[in-house]
Amino acid sequence: MKMLDLFGPMKKDMDFIEKQLYRSIEGEEGLLSSTSSHLLKAGGKRLRPVFVLLGGKFGNYDLERLQYVAVPLELIHSASLVHDDVIDDADTRRGKPTVKSQWDNRIAMYTGDYIYGKALTLATRLEDPKIHQILAKAMVQMSIGEMEQIRDFFNTEQSVRNYLLRIRRKTALLIAISCQLGAIAAGASDEMSRLLYRYGYNVGMAFQIRDDLLDLFGTEKQIGKPPGSDMRQGNITLPVLYALREEELREPLLQEIREIHKMDGRKDASDAIQMIRQSSGVATAEGLADRYIDKALDALSRLPENKARKNLQDIAHFVNRRTY
Amino acid sequence: MKMLDLFGPMKKDMDFIEKQLYRSIEGEEGLLSSTSSHLLKAGGKRLRPVFVLLGGKFGNYDLERLQYVAVPLELIHSASLVHDDVIDDADTRRGKPTVKSQWDNRIAMYTGDYIYGKALTLATRLEDPKIHQILAKAMVQMSIGEMEQIRDFFNTEQSVRNYLLRIRRKTALLIAISCQLGAIAAGASDEMSRLLYRYGYNVGMAFQIRDDLLDLFGTEKQIGKPPGSDMRQGNITLPVLYALREEELREPLLQEIREIHKMDGRKDASDAIQMIRQSSGVATAEGLADRYIDKALDALSRLPENKARKNLQDIAHFVNRRTY
Repeated sequence: MKMLDLFGPMKKDMDFIEKQLYRSIEGEEGLLSSTSSHLLKAGGKRLRPVFVLLGGKFGNYDLERLQYVAVPLELIHSASLVHDDVIDDADTRRGKPTVKSQWDNRIAMYTGDYIYGKALTLATRLEDPKIHQILAKAMVQMSIGEMEQIRDFFNTEQSVRNYLLRIRRKTALLIAISCQLGAIAAGASDEMSRLLYRYGYNVGMAFQIRDDLLDLFGTEKQIGKPPGSDMRQGNITLPVLYALREEELREPLLQEIREIHKMDGRKDASDAIQMIRQSSGVATAEGLADRYIDKALDALSRLPENKARKNLQDIAHFVNRRTY
Repeated sequence: MKMLDLFGPMKKDMDFIEKQLYRSIEGEEGLLSSTSSHLLKAGGKRLRPVFVLLGGKFGNYDLERLQYVAVPLELIHSASLVHDDVIDDADTRRGKPTVKSQWDNRIAMYTGDYIYGKALTLATRLEDPKIHQILAKAMVQMSIGEMEQIRDFFNTEQSVRNYLLRIRRKTALLIAISCQLGAIAAGASDEMSRLLYRYGYNVGMAFQIRDDLLDLFGTEKQIGKPPGSDMRQGNITLPVLYALREEELREPLLQEIREIHKMDGRKDASDAIQMIRQSSGVATAEGLADRYIDKALDALSRLPENKARKNLQDIAHFVNRRTY
């Protein structure tokens, strides 16, 4: 089952959002239009707009209004990826060259700034300061999350709590507010917006844990980049932290990570990945992802029963089985 | 006469803004608080907050409200400097090490993102979507301006119009909206906000032309960085463009610029600076700055006569004589 199959009936609305997404970054400066549309063209799941539209189904669904949160949220996500690629020194993203590899780091930086600015400008079309505030705060939290990631590169002593706080800021928060802002823009009740936030937060946590598992155990075809790239850049993820807790694995795994660090990421991570695969870290990480999904489903169960709720349920299950 | 002498009576209010500026970037993440306060600590003229407060004098002056535009505007300015230093590969700013030299480029990038986010979050404390929109649009325009600068590095064929458009986006716009938003936040009339915008825009243009002249002809002590750094990084400014129009200077100057380009900025720019100094480019650039100041004063003359108007007049004259 592909992600988009879930949204057959929503396809027309998502096509509209897609068109608006491209329109939003058209601008006065040719190079910026190319660089900002570059990442959009490479595809992506448009998960955040989907959450916005589904969140909107719990109020007075109005696509004209919802676009002004759906498009900004996808743009903020895109801007963070463009800046992320500068840091990760990534040459490909979604199987295509990154902005920083096709142009350069400086251009990638301003492309990100431009997209952030466009996102926030667009959101002001809805004259609701609460929405602007939630978006701007998300930008702050995301940059804190990114900074924490840099700070914790190759830190094998970090706690699981550290990891969870980081992915909350880096990923879960934006998915949470996608669901919430859809509801708010559609005038849903505070209680519903709150439950949708909680659903999104928990799905987002599971999503990132699954993403980190995929980075280690997926194929290059599945993930659009070579496996183990998190580890090579020093991003110590949940299965690694769990594996490091195992007595007999700890020392050899630490040794491998030190080697990777020493070689500045040029060392292949396959030995380390092999060790982690043999540990119980994978199952423990999957178990935690399951628990987040359970919490997401629990939040959903308190929402009125409708088609959108069923869709959100399907997405939660899908996220937890993802191989893309 | 120092800039701050102008504002004796406003000193108490500016002290409050200064305190709020530091408070605004305090946060959950230690490293980000250090990096973001780093630039603030190095000083700076706080010109944008000054313009906000003076703009506010044309309405119902209320410092409690005005802080929510004054602080964001200084933060946006700071964030753009942090990102600028990444591009410029600058080691010092305001005579102190830059974030990128003291930490690294990645950290400087997220520090900028964090400060932008904090700025926009803070502005949402004023529940006025128009203010949020003006700020977010400025962020877009500034990143376009920065991109144009990168695009035009070492482009000796660019027109004066190109240069003017670029400094409008890079500098003049933010000063214009500082004056305008002060007025808007204080509930001044549309006409007054418009005139203050026009004043700020023209002062900002003159300010940047003067800045570009200083970069060529100032001393390291005056400008806090080695002279000629614009030229070494390929930023072709107004006096250079004017000098290139002179028949007998054009070829040798082009040759010097090509050498600097070839040496990737490691070549001293003093020969080129010497040529420009001998050209009429300096006087022509100064003449254009004068014309912008005249337009700024003209806009002021249509505003009600009060103390703030006198202060703004003094600033306009001061900007046009600046050696700092």
